[in-house]
Amino acid sequence: MIGFTGNTLDRADGLRHDPEAFAAAAGDWRARLLKLDGLLPEVSDDGRLAWTTLADLPDDAQLILLGLDEGRPHFAAYLPGFRPSTAPAMRSPALMTMLASLAPGEAAIYAAARSLIDWHARHGFCANCGTATAVIRAGWARQCPNCAAEHFPRVDPVVIMIAEHDGRALLGRGKNWPAGRYSALAGFLEPGESIEEAVAREIHEEAGVHVNDVRYVASQPWPFPSSLMMACVATAADDAITLDTNELEDAIWVPRDTVRAVLAGEPGPFLAPPPYAIAHTLLMEWAKG
Amino acid sequence: MIGFTGNTLDRADGLRHDPEAFAAAAGDWRARLLKLDGLLPEVSDDGRLAWTTLADLPDDAQLILLGLDEGRPHFAAYLPGFRPSTAPAMRSPALMTMLASLAPGEAAIYAAARSLIDWHARHGFCANCGTATAVIRAGWARQCPNCAAEHFPRVDPVVIMIAEHDGRALLGRGKNWPAGRYSALAGFLEPGESIEEAVAREIHEEAGVHVNDVRYVASQPWPFPSSLMMACVATAADDAITLDTNELEDAIWVPRDTVRAVLAGEPGPFLAPPPYAIAHTLLMEWAKG
Repeated sequence: MIGFTGNTLDRADGLRHDPEAFAAAAGDWRARLLKLDGLLPEVSDDGRLAWTTLADLPDDAQLILLGLDEGRPHFAAYLPGFRPSTAPAMRSPALMTMLASLAPGEAAIYAAARSLIDWHARHGFCANCGTATAVIRAGWARQCPNCAAEHFPRVDPVVIMIAEHDGRALLGRGKNWPAGRYSALAGFLEPGESIEEAVAREIHEEAGVHVNDVRYVASQPWPFPSSLMMACVATAADDAITLDTNELEDAIWVPRDTVRAVLAGEPGPFLAPPPYAIAHTLLMEWAKG
Repeated sequence: MIGFTGNTLDRADGLRHDPEAFAAAAGDWRARLLKLDGLLPEVSDDGRLAWTTLADLPDDAQLILLGLDEGRPHFAAYLPGFRPSTAPAMRSPALMTMLASLAPGEAAIYAAARSLIDWHARHGFCANCGTATAVIRAGWARQCPNCAAEHFPRVDPVVIMIAEHDGRALLGRGKNWPAGRYSALAGFLEPGESIEEAVAREIHEEAGVHVNDVRYVASQPWPFPSSLMMACVATAADDAITLDTNELEDAIWVPRDTVRAVLAGEPGPFLAPPPYAIAHTLLMEWAKG
């Protein structure tokens, strides 16, 4: 299972467009509320998310319908005024431990909730006219009372990829990464480009390597704060590296056998990415040959 | 060539982070400005975009660096106060004719320019605090003078797909579409889901069809206003259709031979999508078998 995929809830899109049905779901005595401490989940010993009832929510809480499980409504709550930390989530050892312990599918529910709460917290005003907006559509949009513009949660597409050349994979390390960590290169896709074009542009920008073929491998949601990671393998025309030192601290070519050994837990020239990151999935796929 | 891909300009990311180099590019006498009438391009008989100089721009014009061609800077301009039409671009016969006439690569330059101008026009205020924001990074971002939040152009990932069953493809038609038009189903990917999950959800929501395997085919930027279209084929578990009549007016299963004939220009049960739409690419790929 790819990290953050496998959400078993029915998103129940119809309920979002039906205020009466939504109110009924919020009034359902079986309704469950995801327990969060800020943006951190509570995780049980068997890797399950913790849930509670809606009973103790403050009056101004905004409900987000995560979905239904056999008809039972599951919610997250956004509390107006909540300010998420701007520190990179990836630097929180507590969060990393929780993510590693979550059962498949549970991390996916958490990802949707986290991305939406973070989005509400940083998008309370209308980008079109500056007026404070209101939550609509069961927490899946906001609307401006002044200009009527609707705003939907962002999902930012990101390409993450390895270039391959002569049986070796190009891995890079960012500035201030933990010692020994190397991973696939990555970057935001921009307006006016395809996935394949973004992959080629990023590899060239960051490492100076030209690629001439790009194959899509897999995708995952990445809730820090709300990306769609699209993993690809590209064939490099040659292996000369010209680092963009604003982006990368180092880049190396790693032979397939070495990647395979590191993923199997053996020591090597780099530390493997965590299993919930799609870089792990991507390297596993590539290592198969 | 897939529609809206093949941009030959070097996006010159480095210039965006270097105000002096950007000013030098804007002062370069060779600099070219994309000619637009609102959001409509001017297209020559041989399918090229029309360009002019920066000389006649009003003082408050905001330059967007589209990229370099052998060092020569290419810009688009956003004029503060410009309000794009909210009418669906796809209903403009003049625009459709222009798109069909653009040479490969030219449409890609236009796509980037159009998406960025439209984004600036509808995102002049800080979503975090409501303050008017200023253009930074050579037109590729905006920053809030009050809370310092940076805002980047949206790219909204959209899945577009055909379900296949027993050699037939599932095509649907939206409400108010031109007579005879059917195409691949499509929908916005949401926070907390992978491409593959979004494909399965959308096919089930819109047509009631369950799919059990999803293969990525290709992607394209779609500048109305700024989507990333990700085309997939999914294997349907069965062929029973349950229409969501809020989304679709009709859905039909079309045999491969029929799809092939329609794409070759023969009359059939549906009108082929235009060549610049990735639905066309997707159907062409699927028709090959």
